[in-house]
Amino acid sequence: MKELRGVSAKSIHNRYHREKSINPAERLYSNMIAEIIAAGSEMLTPFRQDTNSLYLTEGLNDLGVQVAFKTIVGDNLAHLTSAAIIAISRVDIVIFSGGLGPTEDDLTREAAAAALGIDLHADNAVLAALYKRFAARQMVMPSNNAKQANVLDGADVIHNKYGSAPAQFLDTTILDTNGKPVRKIVILLPGPPKELKPLFDDEVKPRLAASLPVRHLAKRILRMALIPESHIDARTAPIYQQYPDVETTILAGSGEIQLHFLCAKPTLADADARLDELTEKIEAEMEDAIFSSHGESLEEVVLLNLGLRHLTLATAESCTGGLLAERLTAVPGSSRYFLGGAVVYSDALKTTFAGVPTELIATKGPVSPEVARALAEGMRVRTGAALGISITGIAGPGPGAPGPDANKPIGLVYIALADSQNTQVKEFQLPGDRERIRLWASQHALELIRHHLL
Amino acid sequence: MKELRGVSAKSIHNRYHREKSINPAERLYSNMIAEIIAAGSEMLTPFRQDTNSLYLTEGLNDLGVQVAFKTIVGDNLAHLTSAAIIAISRVDIVIFSGGLGPTEDDLTREAAAAALGIDLHADNAVLAALYKRFAARQMVMPSNNAKQANVLDGADVIHNKYGSAPAQFLDTTILDTNGKPVRKIVILLPGPPKELKPLFDDEVKPRLAASLPVRHLAKRILRMALIPESHIDARTAPIYQQYPDVETTILAGSGEIQLHFLCAKPTLADADARLDELTEKIEAEMEDAIFSSHGESLEEVVLLNLGLRHLTLATAESCTGGLLAERLTAVPGSSRYFLGGAVVYSDALKTTFAGVPTELIATKGPVSPEVARALAEGMRVRTGAALGISITGIAGPGPGAPGPDANKPIGLVYIALADSQNTQVKEFQLPGDRERIRLWASQHALELIRHHLL
Repeated sequence: MKELRGVSAKSIHNRYHREKSINPAERLYSNMIAEIIAAGSEMLTPFRQDTNSLYLTEGLNDLGVQVAFKTIVGDNLAHLTSAAIIAISRVDIVIFSGGLGPTEDDLTREAAAAALGIDLHADNAVLAALYKRFAARQMVMPSNNAKQANVLDGADVIHNKYGSAPAQFLDTTILDTNGKPVRKIVILLPGPPKELKPLFDDEVKPRLAASLPVRHLAKRILRMALIPESHIDARTAPIYQQYPDVETTILAGSGEIQLHFLCAKPTLADADARLDELTEKIEAEMEDAIFSSHGESLEEVVLLNLGLRHLTLATAESCTGGLLAERLTAVPGSSRYFLGGAVVYSDALKTTFAGVPTELIATKGPVSPEVARALAEGMRVRTGAALGISITGIAGPGPGAPGPDANKPIGLVYIALADSQNTQVKEFQLPGDRERIRLWASQHALELIRHHLL
Repeated sequence: MKELRGVSAKSIHNRYHREKSINPAERLYSNMIAEIIAAGSEMLTPFRQDTNSLYLTEGLNDLGVQVAFKTIVGDNLAHLTSAAIIAISRVDIVIFSGGLGPTEDDLTREAAAAALGIDLHADNAVLAALYKRFAARQMVMPSNNAKQANVLDGADVIHNKYGSAPAQFLDTTILDTNGKPVRKIVILLPGPPKELKPLFDDEVKPRLAASLPVRHLAKRILRMALIPESHIDARTAPIYQQYPDVETTILAGSGEIQLHFLCAKPTLADADARLDELTEKIEAEMEDAIFSSHGESLEEVVLLNLGLRHLTLATAESCTGGLLAERLTAVPGSSRYFLGGAVVYSDALKTTFAGVPTELIATKGPVSPEVARALAEGMRVRTGAALGISITGIAGPGPGAPGPDANKPIGLVYIALADSQNTQVKEFQLPGDRERIRLWASQHALELIRHHLL
């Protein structure tokens, strides 16, 4: 898992407020605002969402442009044209994604032209490339496909080496309702992310950067696990509030908190220096709670630290059922330091694979500090790993097994970490449902290993 | 995992086209269209998305209402009011989510009132409830919070037992630009999904249903794994195309295809009968490729079938590193039929936990049909399970280990399934990156078990 699982941003500091006191020359965002229009009826079903806009928003923010509106509209010419007219009237930069294909449902070119009151013309170079593309596959091009060569008058045609529809970039001036000339940038991008992303990064961003005031933005991300957001905010707010020229965003979700810092200065060196100063203070305050300041995931950091110390790891998982091993092995190259382990879901397998005495399980229950310890130690010895870690708990929704565990609460989890000298055992009472309990248990296990390796 | 992982809908048949020939009395959708406005600056950052709209869209579709636009707008009164004016002018039903809190950034009430040209009034019952809420916590209510009691003139106040801001439902008539009276329904819902979902289901849907023409919609979902979408479409299109009164949606992603069928008839019995007839024909055509027709996931179906036959299962995973075990144990109650297994990531653990002879690994390589067989058989014997399944492969991005695997291609995967009589071994060459190869390998393993149990 390279990405934060199901991250939900609980608190995002409001940019408008934070910037009030800032010198306009050092504002994070220019005065230009953008709207993203995602065209496609499928995004108006319960099944699919516009995800391109997150990518485009990040790229626009990097350039100092804020996104003020996102609109999702179906493959309907009247609807799409009205959305285009509204967007062109209310923002400076309009980016369309999707609707550039060859079918009758692909209407973005027509809608943008109608909204701007300009014509489309067939671009001969694009048309020739389309014919060539089909010829290369020994096919005759259906006449429909020719519409992909239609270009907004005055627009730059951006060749799309990842698909057949070119992107378009139009930097123009229109008259507003008062007859005043205003500048508008209209960009058409194909919908498939594999086409949209490289076209945006390689072609659109440089064109936009050349069209916008120069800004020097620096960025830092600090990641922490398992500390409540309110605790982190209470400890870090007195620091970051002394930096009103830095935009601070706190993202929380899935047992992880991220602090994002963004700063604009007349030079990049100034912006970097300012963020270095701030993040050093935050790191001093939070000490080793920060597991990553360069974007690595918790599992990557654990594997990195195992590698630095030439140590190997093995896992014995009961309630997490392989989740910890799965997260570690999702990292390429993990096989050098992660040997594997066992999913000891049944009591018998706790004995078979980790040598836990059956009497111990019978008397203490599979969810007990004693069994957690025996699992970690047994797994370490059986596999020859330097470190053995175990997780045993009650993930619910059903109660613990009959016997000693019958009255133990859902969410009770024991995690043990054994090396050649010692074994530490930790008890947790985790809230939430089965999925959350399992995820947090794996998160606690990774943090236990990371702290052990510090 | 109860939900389809990272499902991406590749092809969704266009409703507008499919309905052309339908008797209006049996149209899936009424003539009323809706817009969803999500209010919140955080959804205009790269970090967070409006997800409420998927839920609202499904609920609206169930009532025969199509969503024509989705708009995402920040906490800015001018922007939010302009979005509200546009929405009220172009659709029949406008649902706002978010912006009902007590802070100065919560502006949805004000924007909706301004767009409708009506006033807000303080609702005394809501105000009293707010004071009571704070008093119960021994707190004085900040004056800001009183704004949560502001209600659109003429709106129903919907008590929110999950939070402090009530929802609002306004069914009204306004004059359009030609002075003609037109009916508009405006709904305000709080943003937190835990408040929005029950309020929408329990309060808004019944009110909407009472305000809309009666419709009887039936729905079916058939799920298949690992068959290319184009094959499924080629075999099923000749069948579902004979049912122009049924909306067919094909969703593809993560090694799974879903066929969704939706049908409206004068009575629910008619609609059900029509879909039963269609799905029976599809099931006959696709035979046992359909693993679920009642919403169960593939892992749930496998566990269900193990239960029906009183059989137990154990896993030996190399390249999937615990993913198969994790998926099985994510299902509550899986411990009855899934014993556990081993993550035999290193060669040594293949021997330690499944008794694979070291010579076999040395001569054939860990990624070989012989080792896959030995893993499945060894795991079955060691754990005492009725069935043992193994997965070994090269997930990349690096090549196979030095030795016999050095020149084997990335994506080569062997899966073996052993029972007391036989062992079957299958070879796959899976495309894509590490994550995709691992996911598809686990999908193939589950399908192998399911077919074995049929």
